Amino acid sequence: MSFQVGEKIYEGKAKVIFNVQNQPDLVYQEFKDSLTAFNGEKKGGFKSKGHLNRDITSIIFQRLSQKGVPNHWIENQGDTGMITKRVKIIPIEVVVRNIAAGSLAKRLGWEEGRKLSLPIMEFYYKNDNLGDPIINEDHIRILGLATDETLSEIRRMAKIINGELTQLFGACGLDLVDFKLEFGRTKNGEIILADEVSPDTCRLWDKTTKEKLDKDRFRRDLGNIEEAYRKVHERVELAVKKGANS
Amino acid sequence: MSFQVGEKIYEGKAKVIFNVQNQPDLVYQEFKDSLTAFNGEKKGGFKSKGHLNRDITSIIFQRLSQKGVPNHWIENQGDTGMITKRVKIIPIEVVVRNIAAGSLAKRLGWEEGRKLSLPIMEFYYKNDNLGDPIINEDHIRILGLATDETLSEIRRMAKIINGELTQLFGACGLDLVDFKLEFGRTKNGEIILADEVSPDTCRLWDKTTKEKLDKDRFRRDLGNIEEAYRKVHERVELAVKKGANS
Repeated sequence: MSFQVGEKIYEGKAKVIFNVQNQPDLVYQEFKDSLTAFNGEKKGGFKSKGHLNRDITSIIFQRLSQKGVPNHWIENQGDTGMITKRVKIIPIEVVVRNIAAGSLAKRLGWEEGRKLSLPIMEFYYKNDNLGDPIINEDHIRILGLATDETLSEIRRMAKIINGELTQLFGACGLDLVDFKLEFGRTKNGEIILADEVSPDTCRLWDKTTKEKLDKDRFRRDLGNIEEAYRKVHERVELAVKKGANS
Repeated sequence: MSFQVGEKIYEGKAKVIFNVQNQPDLVYQEFKDSLTAFNGEKKGGFKSKGHLNRDITSIIFQRLSQKGVPNHWIENQGDTGMITKRVKIIPIEVVVRNIAAGSLAKRLGWEEGRKLSLPIMEFYYKNDNLGDPIINEDHIRILGLATDETLSEIRRMAKIINGELTQLFGACGLDLVDFKLEFGRTKNGEIILADEVSPDTCRLWDKTTKEKLDKDRFRRDLGNIEEAYRKVHERVELAVKKGANS
């Protein structure tokens, strides 16, 4: 199907969102080449980032659809674009963790790389002005970000997604250390997975070498950022091709 | 009953804990005159602080006992001491909030003084090295700080305590803005309220003038610290005398 991109609605740090002409329930998302970290304070990027993240996200979202996880992906467009369902984003960043790293390692005083005996779920208030603070269910209630019912549904979906992604990345020889999800509500009130799943939003470590293949290469000035994103792209593409009949 | 204080077990920022001779299930707690804030970085104090906080805590703990909330208080000793049950402290600081202030105001981007439509409960990991970070139930589980059952019991008790303290301080012309509780486990496995309830651990504002009558006077260099603690002491003493038959 062919879509005509309309006017820009919103520009975020990693994507620009546009209307789609004559399709009020859809939007067009353009994946940017820029990289930001620490609430936008650190800036960078590389030429093919938008393309790689668009591809990785679309492969994963199609796989999640097959596994029964509703999400916003409709079809890719061009090198860096994606038509998605239009949703109202629920302003909660849902973080799921399988291995201690980043802010969790700091919070608990644990060394990075320590396997968690159970996955941990954290909620952050998606609010740049406040620096995306961590929040609990009482904060969510008082801010009116989600009803208890919506939050239960988000928890349920995030757990399923963690299982599917751990398996998918596992088949790529990657440990899924942790990742951030965003959910949205469609016009019909359905809660679906939105945003992206990419090395920008997941910590991915090579299972054997423990090499970091994600945005931490940028955050921590580890070099070879583009190479890392390319490796993830290649491996995810290959794994999905191999597993097409599974 | 007369108790003989034994050797020192532990010195915290606000209290020193001693054994009690021939009473293995009891300890003696000495309330210090020192004041600290910002994880011990700011230091101060005044001569009668230990006495005032001991008195306020003991009045409140006796009232809570009458209301069916089990706690560690046994009897006062001297001007600044208290015999309590010996407990193993559960390393979770339980914060209950009725009005936005302090770190909650920052976290949500709300102005101080905004009444919450529902009380908020927060858990902090009692760990000076980590700066007492905020944690959620998954963190509590993974750290093994409390079982789900223990946490439910703590939540239940904290809600009841909030109701009782709001009423008690309300009768003193004080808004109970927020407060921090610590719970402990006795030898028999009973979960009881421990630590203290005082202007060190509660935000208390005069209902009419909104004057702060708590440790924020020290944290924020507002002056008249001792006067504030004395006011709370006087009012709590008076309210309990008046309400003795209630």
